[in-house]
Order: sequence, then C-alpha cells, then structure tokens
Amino acid sequence: MLKPAERDQLRVVLVRTRNPLNIGAVARAMSNFGVLKLRLVEPYEKAFREVRSAVGAVELLKRAEVFESVAAAVGDCKLVVGATAVRHREIQHPLKALDRAAVDIRRALHSHPVALMFGSEKYGLSVDDLSHCNLLLRIPTREEHISMNLGHAVAVTLYELNRTKMSPAAKSPKKPAPTADDLERITGVLVRSLLASGYIKKNIEASTEQKIRRLVRRLTLDESDAEVWLAMLRKLLWKIEQG
Amino acid sequence: MLKPAERDQLRVVLVRTRNPLNIGAVARAMSNFGVLKLRLVEPYEKAFREVRSAVGAVELLKRAEVFESVAAAVGDCKLVVGATAVRHREIQHPLKALDRAAVDIRRALHSHPVALMFGSEKYGLSVDDLSHCNLLLRIPTREEHISMNLGHAVAVTLYELNRTKMSPAAKSPKKPAPTADDLERITGVLVRSLLASGYIKKNIEASTEQKIRRLVRRLTLDESDAEVWLAMLRKLLWKIEQG
Repeated sequence: MLKPAERDQLRVVLVRTRNPLNIGAVARAMSNFGVLKLRLVEPYEKAFREVRSAVGAVELLKRAEVFESVAAAVGDCKLVVGATAVRHREIQHPLKALDRAAVDIRRALHSHPVALMFGSEKYGLSVDDLSHCNLLLRIPTREEHISMNLGHAVAVTLYELNRTKMSPAAKSPKKPAPTADDLERITGVLVRSLLASGYIKKNIEASTEQKIRRLVRRLTLDESDAEVWLAMLRKLLWKIEQG
Repeated sequence: MLKPAERDQLRVVLVRTRNPLNIGAVARAMSNFGVLKLRLVEPYEKAFREVRSAVGAVELLKRAEVFESVAAAVGDCKLVVGATAVRHREIQHPLKALDRAAVDIRRALHSHPVALMFGSEKYGLSVDDLSHCNLLLRIPTREEHISMNLGHAVAVTLYELNRTKMSPAAKSPKKPAPTADDLERITGVLVRSLLASGYIKKNIEASTEQKIRRLVRRLTLDESDAEVWLAMLRKLLWKIEQG
C-alpha cells in the first residue's frame, strides 16, 4: 500500500467529465484506496456533489476542487500523468503501460505532488490536455475494445499504485492436523460401514483396506474436521448395523 | 495477458445484482479484458440486456446466461472463487489477497473452467453463496472503506488476472479436480445419509447444510477420489434407506 504521506501527494484530476455519476464512482474508488484529493476541470454538470454513486465518499466529493483549466488544476504538481487509451495516434510523450508508469509515479510520490489525469467519457484527454503531461499511461486492454469506463480506469490505476509488490502470503495459522490414530479410527469405521453395506466383500483383501486408508489420508483433514467426519461415519455405521 | 484459451475458461458470475447499470458496466469491463462469459444468478431486474452502460459489450450482455441458483451457475467449474470485502468475520475458506489468488486462478485456467463470483451491491455474497467456493479473494482496500463498486471490483480483478505473469506450469502434473457439480452430488448424498441416520434433524437448517457443503469443499478431493467417495456414500445411503 502507498504510505499516507505518499497518498497525500496524489491528485486525481478529471477533465470535462460529463456524467456526475461517474464523478461519484471515481470518488468512491479513490476513497477505497485512500487517495482523497479530487480535482475537476470544467465538469459538465455543476451539481455533482451529492450524487448517490459516491458511496462512502461524500466528504471527499464535497471537498473536491473545481478548476477552469488543466493548467490551473495541475499547477502545483511536478509529475503530470495522463491516462489514455490511444495507441496509434502520433504521441509526443513517453507512453508506458500502467505497471511501468506506476514505478515512476511511486518514485515521484516520495517527494512531490503528482497529478493523475483522466479525460471525458467520450473523448478522453485532448491533444491540448496531453500537452500538460510529462508521462502518459495506458491500461492494457484488448485491441478490439480499449475504451474503459472512467471509474473502472481510476480504480484499476489506484489499485496498481497500491499494489507495489506481491502482498505477503496470508498468515492464516495452519490448523492442527489429526493424529494417525484419528485417521485410523475414521478408516476403521469407514471399512466397517462399507462391509456392512456390501460395498466391499466380507473377506476383505489387505489391498482394499490399504486403498481406503490412502483415500482417507488424501483428504488432508484438519483435527476438528476429522472429528466431525468420525462422528458422522459412526452414526451412519450405527444406523446400518441397526437396520 | 491471458491467452484466448484461458480467457475462455473464465466465467464471471454475478449473484443477485440489483442495479442493471452495474451489470452493463461489468460487461464492459469484461470485454475490455477479453473475458466474454457472463452468468447471472437471480438478477433483480430482468430487463438488463439493453442497458446503456454496456458500452461496446452489447453482444456479450445478450449472450449472458441466467441461472436460478449458485449451484447451477458454477456447476461445470472446478475452481469457484468468491470475491469478498469481509475480513474479520470468521471465514471457513482460504482467503487470499487478489494478487495471490490470481496465481491460483491462472494456474487453474490452464486446464479447466473457473468461476469468479461477485455478490450483490449491498450485501455481497451470502454465507450460503460462499459455501460453494473453494477460494475467497479480497481486493486490498483501506480499512476505513473496504466496500467497492461492483464494476470497479470486476475491472480490478480482471486487470490483475491479465497482469500476472504466466506462472510456471506445475511440475508434478496435478490431478484433475472434481467439478462443483461433483462436489454438490457428494454433499447431497451425505446430507440425505445424515438425515436418514438421525445425525441431523429433519427440518434441516440452511446453516447445517452450508456447514456440510464447506466440509466437503475442504476435502480437496481430486476427480477420481470424488467418484469413489460418491459411490461409497451412495451405497451407505442405499443401505440405510433399505434398513
């Protein structure tokens, strides 16, 4: 995860967003990943501050700043990154895939403000908007369908920024294993049940019993599950022998 | 990126989604990442197929399949993964951060169908839904605001699946896993046997059935062992019902 001081250096800048629901969804994604500074350049709809889509991010949306130009919105930033789906247009900027760009962005966040800029739903960032950028990033999507939903693009980008390295393996304490005795009891009850039900024949061969023993071992039961299975199988055996 | 054959094994399963716009947004994110098989369990709004939010993914949405139960929707899958924001609730499943879970999912996609399941906007996946899962994943968000927009969660998950480098093929050829249908058949016969033997009471509570479903999922059976267990349990049931 980004550290609080790093997150604090990050500004998400939305340029000429048309649908206020998208602004709300972006606010929610930002809040999910702890990025709290939202800037809007010429939002199409002025009444965006109370949209329902900003679930859990109402305060963030209320504090969003509105600017009249890209230049003003990114004025205090030293790295300005534009998100674009464009691949083939002649591009005058370094263009990096998100994971590569994220390395640059994280490095910058150590020491200074960074703007992460997203264009309108329909047209993306204009050539003029892009001229304010030091770096462009693109999210790797398939050629046949490159244009992403605005909120999705922001969520994916902030996820990647927070991703850094592989998260530590879950610590989930391994549950205690059953003893060999426990497993042998299960095996024993199972064999008796299978005999009683006719699934295996009376003069049981050693190899059959071994097969069942291995079958039980392969279950990799933990101690408490082993207890439950033993109790269940005992009950089935009891019922069969009673019948 | 996932290879076409791998993407083809992936099913996104949305359970009880309320807002059809979210279904459309999910379809769009799937299309961006080339994952084209959408399954819906009890969508709240039946008329979801023409929502505007499915920009560029109209065909995908038209082909979406609707199911009446989670069991039916994941029946042909051998790995069933549930996305959850829950962290502290006592969880009966392996829970992995998205990047770790993605390693498992990609490995599974080499050889068999995988279900990626997302719950409703408001409640997520229920305990009963989760009992059908082999693995749970969570997207690392900040503690103060863990609940993500549905489309965002799907977009981030599919981005990560495409991001992960190809994990080296497992050296010891892993044995094929049973399908969710196979495990559900075992669960069904076991429940009937436990009822017939009096181990559980007639008016079985949903929670008891869920416990048993989870118990069976924890066995980590392979396909051929699953067959043997099903045959054995069927024989025991037959004997009990005859007696």
